[in-house]
Amino acid sequence: MMSDSEEISTFLSKKDFFIPQLSIACVVFGFHENQLHILLLKTKGVQNWLLPVGFVEQEEDIDDAARNILYNRTGVSDIYLEQFRVFGKAKRPTKQSIEDFLAANHSVGIEADWLLKRFVSIGYYALVDFSKVHAKVNEVTLACEWFEIDKLPVLAFDHQEMIEKALETLRFNLDSKVIGTSLLPDVFTMNELQKLYEGILGESLRRNNFQRKMLSLDILERIEKRYTGAPNKAPYLYRFKKN
Amino acid sequence: MMSDSEEISTFLSKKDFFIPQLSIACVVFGFHENQLHILLLKTKGVQNWLLPVGFVEQEEDIDDAARNILYNRTGVSDIYLEQFRVFGKAKRPTKQSIEDFLAANHSVGIEADWLLKRFVSIGYYALVDFSKVHAKVNEVTLACEWFEIDKLPVLAFDHQEMIEKALETLRFNLDSKVIGTSLLPDVFTMNELQKLYEGILGESLRRNNFQRKMLSLDILERIEKRYTGAPNKAPYLYRFKKN
Repeated sequence: MMSDSEEISTFLSKKDFFIPQLSIACVVFGFHENQLHILLLKTKGVQNWLLPVGFVEQEEDIDDAARNILYNRTGVSDIYLEQFRVFGKAKRPTKQSIEDFLAANHSVGIEADWLLKRFVSIGYYALVDFSKVHAKVNEVTLACEWFEIDKLPVLAFDHQEMIEKALETLRFNLDSKVIGTSLLPDVFTMNELQKLYEGILGESLRRNNFQRKMLSLDILERIEKRYTGAPNKAPYLYRFKKN
Repeated sequence: MMSDSEEISTFLSKKDFFIPQLSIACVVFGFHENQLHILLLKTKGVQNWLLPVGFVEQEEDIDDAARNILYNRTGVSDIYLEQFRVFGKAKRPTKQSIEDFLAANHSVGIEADWLLKRFVSIGYYALVDFSKVHAKVNEVTLACEWFEIDKLPVLAFDHQEMIEKALETLRFNLDSKVIGTSLLPDVFTMNELQKLYEGILGESLRRNNFQRKMLSLDILERIEKRYTGAPNKAPYLYRFKKN
């Protein structure tokens, strides 16, 4: 797994530490101001935006590799993380962007050949508390930013497809408690929960139906009235029940 | 992907055709006499039973590799196949069984070293029509047999864990139409469908509740009364609606 502070040349010479032709890509979801967001990087020499990616060391579990990649990007260590699919087409479009990256970083040559082979990439999705993420940049990673799900920039490789498949999985598992737990603050209103669902599903939901459904799942605990100075309009606050 | 008729030595010399340290394992589910079954192999030199496994050629999509592995084992080419998880712990217990296999096939040595490295294995599950499978054996694959899900033999590697995870995924997706489609014959009774569900879920279901639930899903089409010589007891026949 490439650490941000490493020189490119050191990184390239480390190829024997990694499992060849295997990479990990992370689709990091965060929720902020009622919008679902995804964390993307801009790397020196590569024109389009990228998901956080990395490799697996020979002695490293793949789940740990994914966790380490995210820790290095976000500074968050207790991330909810799940495999969702392996991207393994023989003709995955990775080569051109890697060549651009190597050229921009003066690293073309025999040492870099292993990066130009076909890679099979394991996709993980992560659900993080938006407020706890402190994205890191350095000389190679020029930018690391959140994008609203419906305002994504053009992506490198097959990362657009990866995001779509991650979103499919997230939608399919939406009622699972842990998902809400990781994307919302500890305490939230029914309206915030509804906005999260709407952001993931990409459609509007009826307020009454949504509230009835959520309460029927028996996963929410109502806490107290929020004080806003207008007591009769203050919404209830909820948190997820502990198992 | 190793074909059954290949000599071991030819196979070992082909290592550069494969993506290093990456394998595919297939959990093949079939349904027969009201029991869920799994297809397992016995390989020369390896004491315990194995899932069908194989490798990915450099120019081969991973899904095609899985399809080819299954075609070579079962003779069936239109198999419903889905990735369910990647098994990527650094300490996966594969080495001893591989050493036994190589020793029994007189293939120890430098040529076989690549097989002794750590492998990351992509798990696929397959749903097949039991009646269409004609398992193949040869000098290396000594046996290829169906086992009832609750009477599995001791398995090599981490293949027991793989089966459990595949079963979890299958249970989670149980109401999806394609699952029933691939495991049952074209036409079936409600009782056969219920036995399939019970086999997968590992528990008994109430007949009336099950029938009501299935009909409410709106995926079944009722065809005609089965003729059994006792017309008033003959069960209805169903098939899945076409999309």
